[in-house]
Amino acid sequence: MTIQPGASAVIDADALIEKLACEGRAAQRQLAAMSSEARASALTCSAQRLRAESGSILEANAKDLAAAQDSGLSPAMLDRLALDKDRLESIAAGVEAVAGLPDPVGQVIESSQRPNGLKMSRVRVPIGTIGIIYESRPNVTADAAALCVRAGNAALLRGGSEAVHSNRAILAALTAGLEEGGVPSKAVQLIPTQDRAAVGSMLTAAGLIDMIVPRGGRSLVARVQSDARVPVLAHLDGINHTYIHSAADAEMAKTIALNAKMRRTGICGAMETLLIDAGFAEPGALVASLLDAGCELRGDGRAQALDTRIFPASADDWGTEYLDAVLSVGIVDTMDDALEHIARHSSAHTDVIVTSDDAAAEHFLTYVDSAIVMHNASSQFADGREFGLGAEIGIATGRLHARGPVALEGLTTYKWLVRGTGQARP
Amino acid sequence: MTIQPGASAVIDADALIEKLACEGRAAQRQLAAMSSEARASALTCSAQRLRAESGSILEANAKDLAAAQDSGLSPAMLDRLALDKDRLESIAAGVEAVAGLPDPVGQVIESSQRPNGLKMSRVRVPIGTIGIIYESRPNVTADAAALCVRAGNAALLRGGSEAVHSNRAILAALTAGLEEGGVPSKAVQLIPTQDRAAVGSMLTAAGLIDMIVPRGGRSLVARVQSDARVPVLAHLDGINHTYIHSAADAEMAKTIALNAKMRRTGICGAMETLLIDAGFAEPGALVASLLDAGCELRGDGRAQALDTRIFPASADDWGTEYLDAVLSVGIVDTMDDALEHIARHSSAHTDVIVTSDDAAAEHFLTYVDSAIVMHNASSQFADGREFGLGAEIGIATGRLHARGPVALEGLTTYKWLVRGTGQARP
Repeated sequence: MTIQPGASAVIDADALIEKLACEGRAAQRQLAAMSSEARASALTCSAQRLRAESGSILEANAKDLAAAQDSGLSPAMLDRLALDKDRLESIAAGVEAVAGLPDPVGQVIESSQRPNGLKMSRVRVPIGTIGIIYESRPNVTADAAALCVRAGNAALLRGGSEAVHSNRAILAALTAGLEEGGVPSKAVQLIPTQDRAAVGSMLTAAGLIDMIVPRGGRSLVARVQSDARVPVLAHLDGINHTYIHSAADAEMAKTIALNAKMRRTGICGAMETLLIDAGFAEPGALVASLLDAGCELRGDGRAQALDTRIFPASADDWGTEYLDAVLSVGIVDTMDDALEHIARHSSAHTDVIVTSDDAAAEHFLTYVDSAIVMHNASSQFADGREFGLGAEIGIATGRLHARGPVALEGLTTYKWLVRGTGQARP
Repeated sequence: MTIQPGASAVIDADALIEKLACEGRAAQRQLAAMSSEARASALTCSAQRLRAESGSILEANAKDLAAAQDSGLSPAMLDRLALDKDRLESIAAGVEAVAGLPDPVGQVIESSQRPNGLKMSRVRVPIGTIGIIYESRPNVTADAAALCVRAGNAALLRGGSEAVHSNRAILAALTAGLEEGGVPSKAVQLIPTQDRAAVGSMLTAAGLIDMIVPRGGRSLVARVQSDARVPVLAHLDGINHTYIHSAADAEMAKTIALNAKMRRTGICGAMETLLIDAGFAEPGALVASLLDAGCELRGDGRAQALDTRIFPASADDWGTEYLDAVLSVGIVDTMDDALEHIARHSSAHTDVIVTSDDAAAEHFLTYVDSAIVMHNASSQFADGREFGLGAEIGIATGRLHARGPVALEGLTTYKWLVRGTGQARP
C-alpha cells in the first residue's frame, strides 16, 4: 500500500487506518506503562516545542490561509483557521494546563474484600485509542492530543483539509516534545491523507479505534453518528431551554436570559427556547430586554401578545438550534407543562430553571433528564473549564459512558483487579 | 398496524418497536419518579406473585417443553428451558434479592463549588430503556427485568421462541406484582411476536432503546454486536488465560488450574489457555493433574514434551473458546512473553497469574488490559455475585461505560446538576 499525500487516487483506506491504529496501539502500551509524572512532563516539553517552533507553524498556517482565501472560504471560517502569536501561545499554555491536571489513571474507584478473602478493586485505566475527527480549527490538533496523552491514550487525528499544513506543523512540534519526554511519537498521529474514505474507515474500525470524538459543525457530527460502528462521544444539537418559573426574581431572570442567549449566540450552550410561566410577574419587560438587545423572538400566540415585535413561531422552531440571535418563546401554565415541553423538544444538553422557590428548583432538577440541569445560572456555563474539569474533549448528550462536559475521566475506563491467596470457586 | 401473535406474516416491526418503546418510556418516567423504597417494594410484590402463580407458570412451561421435545431440541437446551418448583423459587428469591440491593439512583458521584459560587454535582440516574435479547432460559425474563426496574429503567424483553409460554406467564406474574406496588406494567414489556424482524428493529432503535444486552450463545451475541446501532453491553468470548509464574506455589497452581478449567467447563469464566513459565518447578505434575481429571490438552512443542497424552495445538487453538474439557497449553520463557501472548489472544474477559512473588503479580495486574485481572484465584470467580454485586445483567468486554460483571451501577448513567444564585457567564 502506498500513500501519496495530496493525491486523489484511490487509497486502501481500511489498510491505512489499520496500520496507523496498530502502530498507535503499540505506542499506547508504552504510554500506559509510563508514570503519570513522565506523561505530564512530556506534555510540558510539547508546550515548549510549540513555542519554539512558532515560526514554522505560523508559516504553515499562512500557506493554509492563502489557499483558503483563494478557494473563497467565508470570513468566519478564515478566522477559525487563522493562527497568530497570541493564539499559538494560548495553544501552548493549554497543553501545559492539561499536563498539570490531576491524572485519573490508576485511581481506585472502589475496593472491597469478599467473605472468602478475595480483594476486589476497580482501577481507572486508559481507554486505548481515541479517534478525533475535526474541521478547520488547528488548535484541536494540540488540545485533543494533549488530553488523550494525559490520560494514557493514543490519538488518531483527522483534521480538515483547509488546515492541513497547520495541523502537520503543530503535530511535528507536539510529537517532537513528546519524544523528548520519552513518549513514542506514534502515540499521536495525523491521518496522512485528506481522502474522505479514510474517515469512513475510522468510523468502522471497531476493535482498532475505541472511541470517536467528532469536533465540528452539525453535518460532521450527524455523519459520524450515522455511520460510526465505533462508539461516539458527541452532541448533535444544543436545544437548550430556560424556564422562568412563577417565583423567579425578575431581575435575575433578565440577567440570565440575556446572558444565556446573547453572550455568544454560536456556542452549543446558548439558550434556544425561553419558557415563561404564566404566573411570572414581568414577562413583558423580560422579552423587551431581549428584543432591545437585538434578539429576534419567535413566540406562540400568548408570547406574541407580550410585544408586537415578536414573530409567530412555526412548529419547527421548537426543535431548531438557531446558533444566532434568534429565540423561541413560549408561555406555559405550570411547571408540568414546562417539563413536558422540555421532554419533547430538548436535545438533552443543558436546561435551566430560574426561580427563588428551592422546592420548585429541586423538582425541576430531578425531573429534567438532560446531561446538564441548572438552577439560577446561565446555560452558557456548559463548558468543561467552567465545571472545573480544566479542559474538555467535548460535550456528550448520549446516555452511556460519559455525559455533559467530558475531560480526562471520560477518556478512561476501568478494570477489575482481584487479589487472592489461592481461592478456587466451590 | 396489527400484530398477530404467532403469525409469520410480515409485520411492521419498526412501528411495533417504536410503539412499545414509547409506552415503555412513559412508564419509565413514572418509575424514575418513584422512591427507591417504592421500587424495591414493588419488586417484592413481584416475587410474591411469582410464587403465587407457580401453577400457571409451570403449566406454561410444560407447553414449551412439549413443543421443544417435538421439535427435537437437545437435552442441554431442554434443561435450560425446564422449570420446576425449586427453579421457580430461586427465580422469586432472585427478584427479592435484587429488591434488597442498594439503589445507585440518586447517588452523588462528586460535588464541588466553583470560585463563582456555582455548585456542581454529578448524580446517578437511570439509563432509560434497556433491551434484553435472550435465548431459551426463562429465568432471564425475571432476572433482567428486576435489575432494570431496581435501577429505574424500563425493560423491553425479547425471549427465545422455545420459551414463549413460560416467558409470558412469568411476565404476567411479575408485572401484576409491579402494578400492585405502583409501577406501571408497561415498565416491563415482552415483544409480542417471535418474528425475527423485531430483533432487527430493536437493534436499530437508536433514541428509543438506550442499551441492548444480549444474553445467550456466541452466534446471538455476534449478530447483536454486528447489527446494533444501539450501544451493546456484552462479551463475545471468554478466552481466559491462567499464567503459572516461575514463583508459583505448585499445589496452588494445580488447585487453581483444575478449578478454572474443570469446575464448569461451559461458562464464560472458564480458563481456555494455560501458560506455564519455563522456570516453574513442576509443570509435569500440573498438566498430569488436568489430564487425569479428564481434560484434553493441546500444547505447543515444549508443552507436548511434558506428557505424551498432549495433542499438538493448531494456530486456531490459541483463539478458541472451547467451553468444554479442552485446554490449550503453552510454555513461555518470561513474563513478557506471557503478557505478549495474552495481549494477542485474550478476549479481555478474565486473565489470571499464579505466583508467590507479589511484585510479579502487581506487574501482571498492571500490564494485562482485560476487564478482570486476577492474582492467585480461579477465573471461575468472574461473576457479579462473587464480586459482591448481588446479581449481574451480564459481563462486558467492551471498553466504554462498564467493564467486567455489570449490575445496577452499569444500568445507570449520571447527570450534572448546577445550582446557582443568578450567575451569568462573563
